[in-house]
Amino acid sequence: MITLLSDFGRKDVYVSIMKAVIAAIAPEIATCDLTHEVPPQDILAGRFNLMVAYPYFPIKTVHLAVVDPGVGSSRRAVAVECSRGFLVGPDNGLLSGVLQQETVLQAVVLNNSVYWRTDQPSHTFHGRDIFAPVAAHLARGVAIGELGDRISPSSLIQPTLRPFTQLAEPSQILRDRVASSRRPFCRGSIQYIDGFGNLISNIPHSLLPDFPWQVTLTTPAHTQVFTGVKFYTDVPVGAIAALAGSHGFIEIACNSGSAAAALGVSVDALSQITPSYEVTVSLAPLFA
Amino acid sequence: MITLLSDFGRKDVYVSIMKAVIAAIAPEIATCDLTHEVPPQDILAGRFNLMVAYPYFPIKTVHLAVVDPGVGSSRRAVAVECSRGFLVGPDNGLLSGVLQQETVLQAVVLNNSVYWRTDQPSHTFHGRDIFAPVAAHLARGVAIGELGDRISPSSLIQPTLRPFTQLAEPSQILRDRVASSRRPFCRGSIQYIDGFGNLISNIPHSLLPDFPWQVTLTTPAHTQVFTGVKFYTDVPVGAIAALAGSHGFIEIACNSGSAAAALGVSVDALSQITPSYEVTVSLAPLFA
Amino acid sequence: MITLLSDFGRKDVYVSIMKAVIAAIAPEIATCDLTHEVPPQDILAGRFNLMVAYPYFPIKTVHLAVVDPGVGSSRRAVAVECSRGFLVGPDNGLLSGVLQQETVLQAVVLNNSVYWRTDQPSHTFHGRDIFAPVAAHLARGVAIGELGDRISPSSLIQPTLRPFTQLAEPSQILRDRVASSRRPFCRGSIQYIDGFGNLISNIPHSLLPDFPWQVTLTTPAHTQVFTGVKFYTDVPVGAIAALAGSHGFIEIACNSGSAAAALGVSVDALSQITPSYEVTVSLAPLFA
Repeated sequence: MITLLSDFGRKDVYVSIMKAVIAAIAPEIATCDLTHEVPPQDILAGRFNLMVAYPYFPIKTVHLAVVDPGVGSSRRAVAVECSRGFLVGPDNGLLSGVLQQETVLQAVVLNNSVYWRTDQPSHTFHGRDIFAPVAAHLARGVAIGELGDRISPSSLIQPTLRPFTQLAEPSQILRDRVASSRRPFCRGSIQYIDGFGNLISNIPHSLLPDFPWQVTLTTPAHTQVFTGVKFYTDVPVGAIAALAGSHGFIEIACNSGSAAAALGVSVDALSQITPSYEVTVSLAPLFA
Repeated sequence: MITLLSDFGRKDVYVSIMKAVIAAIAPEIATCDLTHEVPPQDILAGRFNLMVAYPYFPIKTVHLAVVDPGVGSSRRAVAVECSRGFLVGPDNGLLSGVLQQETVLQAVVLNNSVYWRTDQPSHTFHGRDIFAPVAAHLARGVAIGELGDRISPSSLIQPTLRPFTQLAEPSQILRDRVASSRRPFCRGSIQYIDGFGNLISNIPHSLLPDFPWQVTLTTPAHTQVFTGVKFYTDVPVGAIAALAGSHGFIEIACNSGSAAAALGVSVDALSQITPSYEVTVSLAPLFA
Repeated sequence: MITLLSDFGRKDVYVSIMKAVIAAIAPEIATCDLTHEVPPQDILAGRFNLMVAYPYFPIKTVHLAVVDPGVGSSRRAVAVECSRGFLVGPDNGLLSGVLQQETVLQAVVLNNSVYWRTDQPSHTFHGRDIFAPVAAHLARGVAIGELGDRISPSSLIQPTLRPFTQLAEPSQILRDRVASSRRPFCRGSIQYIDGFGNLISNIPHSLLPDFPWQVTLTTPAHTQVFTGVKFYTDVPVGAIAALAGSHGFIEIACNSGSAAAALGVSVDALSQITPSYEVTVSLAPLFA
């Protein structure tokens, strides 16, 4: 199976052209769209969506990801073999979410034009001319080493692409838990706002203490505290709370509404280098 | 085959994660998206779309539907075997459109966690952890009775979910037809506004008299009368008329335009408990 | 394989109903969505997208295209066998982009109701009742001549549907190249604006001279000149340039932004009969 993720949208035929190229090489391979509505050139949003979908797909799935504002420039085109599956895309940080969680077995730069659609690829659409045919060949069983020169896995993650507030260390968290219920357990930032308007932090909910706990959201405009709950419906319709989200992170959500709209926070601000939305988790005081 | 309907949108990877879960259990089963652009939490719009697509799919198709604002609360998760196919989703009225038209053979509440993805499902994403794996097992041939405890089919339809003006009884309609050409034949309301801006009533066009007939639309703001025609192009570009729509209901449409935009009626108002848009059909006077 | 293109959007279930009809007739045939987000009734946008995706699909692919404002009126429903694949859709100009580039082997009008879904098709949804079943039968191997009466291929292209500035003849272009670097090489117009906001002309980039060259865009409001470059990233972020686009035409694009938004040009204006945006290519002066 090959999955596809891009910022191509569905208004145009870019996605279907990639599928046509795949069908011409590997007609027996099924494709599955992750999403093509990554905001244009938004590598961080693409990185998040690829990272959270990746673990659910069968072993050996090939994940083709194209959010590629530097197409045609010197950024590298790469394929990576991880313990669970393969990644094919530009080396611009798009793959870094998966790479932080996975064991990399091999990585190559895609410079063997034998596996391209043409040896004179378009300067603007490597998805069609390089990434899609390479993904199709990988899915058919071509060895990754055939696709180009090996590169060091350690060179793959782009540190500049992570404007998130770093998480506190777990040891720190445990110490905090013992020392004081008022100091934050852990600190992070909002890494994604989904289509429902849920604000998804980069704090794994495995770090959460037992109830009661609370989450503080600090934006340039103001600071707000939300109670930790179990279900959306634990608060009234229209009210906002924090909960353990389905992707494995703490999120801030509105029952039957959009937390992003209600709080006036925007997706655009997420792309700034300085993290705009800081999140901290702490024990809730039993008597407010 | 498994169809999927939800309010997840295509911006995020929720839909693809459900497909990954299905592929892991039933790799040989094809999936088909009905729509994932049901407005968030809009059970009525989901109900309509599921109801009108359902009859076209092959016998034994499994229809997986997730518009689920009460996820994680006490609303039941169910599977229903109908004479034509299977339904899997929350018991919140989403399935009620199909259920009103179909014969129910069996219904179960999904409380056998053996067929879930995990026995500790997320509190916010039963689509991934309960509904998708159950649909995949059904499609592979697991007997519906294995999935949980049987429930009475009669307990499935939520009467509170039908804020539509009830149709006049057919007998009444026939009496009207004989008695007077000026009294309405039948009365109903707008149940859906599609992406073209067509206003789709809940009046089956099988109830229509012979031409000429006309439709009266009553909104909180005003009352308007539209001539019944056969084709969009029977009126000039930009003009509005009533016709027998492709879903089997009378609809109000604009030739090459949006009737909803032209008339200033909105989808949001459809979700109100009081029906906002009442529709009546009557014979058109031959001499106006 | 059957591809599908329409202006049905993905909010409603129209597309999935066509796929259900196909699955009922030809369950073994795969489908691929080209796009369903053609703006409502925008035949020119549908024509462009079909034309540029067509060449990448395998031989004998059936392309089902439905942008059909005249549905139910006297416009013809047709199927066309070309040297590479089949086209099925309304004869309203939607197919004309492919037809201008392809050799037509046979064409028929779809008047044999044996291959329809019903001999009483809806007046508003021929996609479901005529085009989808015919495409499914073609994909299964029914001979095109069975589908209806033969028509002359030369009657298929609607000249009124091409409000584009005609290209200069190649011979003219060559003469110009020799005579003067200041006279335009070729002239055309904008035929499509894609989801990134790229302005795609109807001038094939095979006509481009060697660098340096430049493109002049003339709109009702103003005239602007853009330098020809190789990559998006050859100009700073936010700057606009001309380049050889991936569809084979010269396009005007903005590095990491929308040229359409920056230049204030709109998709709507493309549908006017008088071409709104004229494009000329000329050699760039070496000393400005």
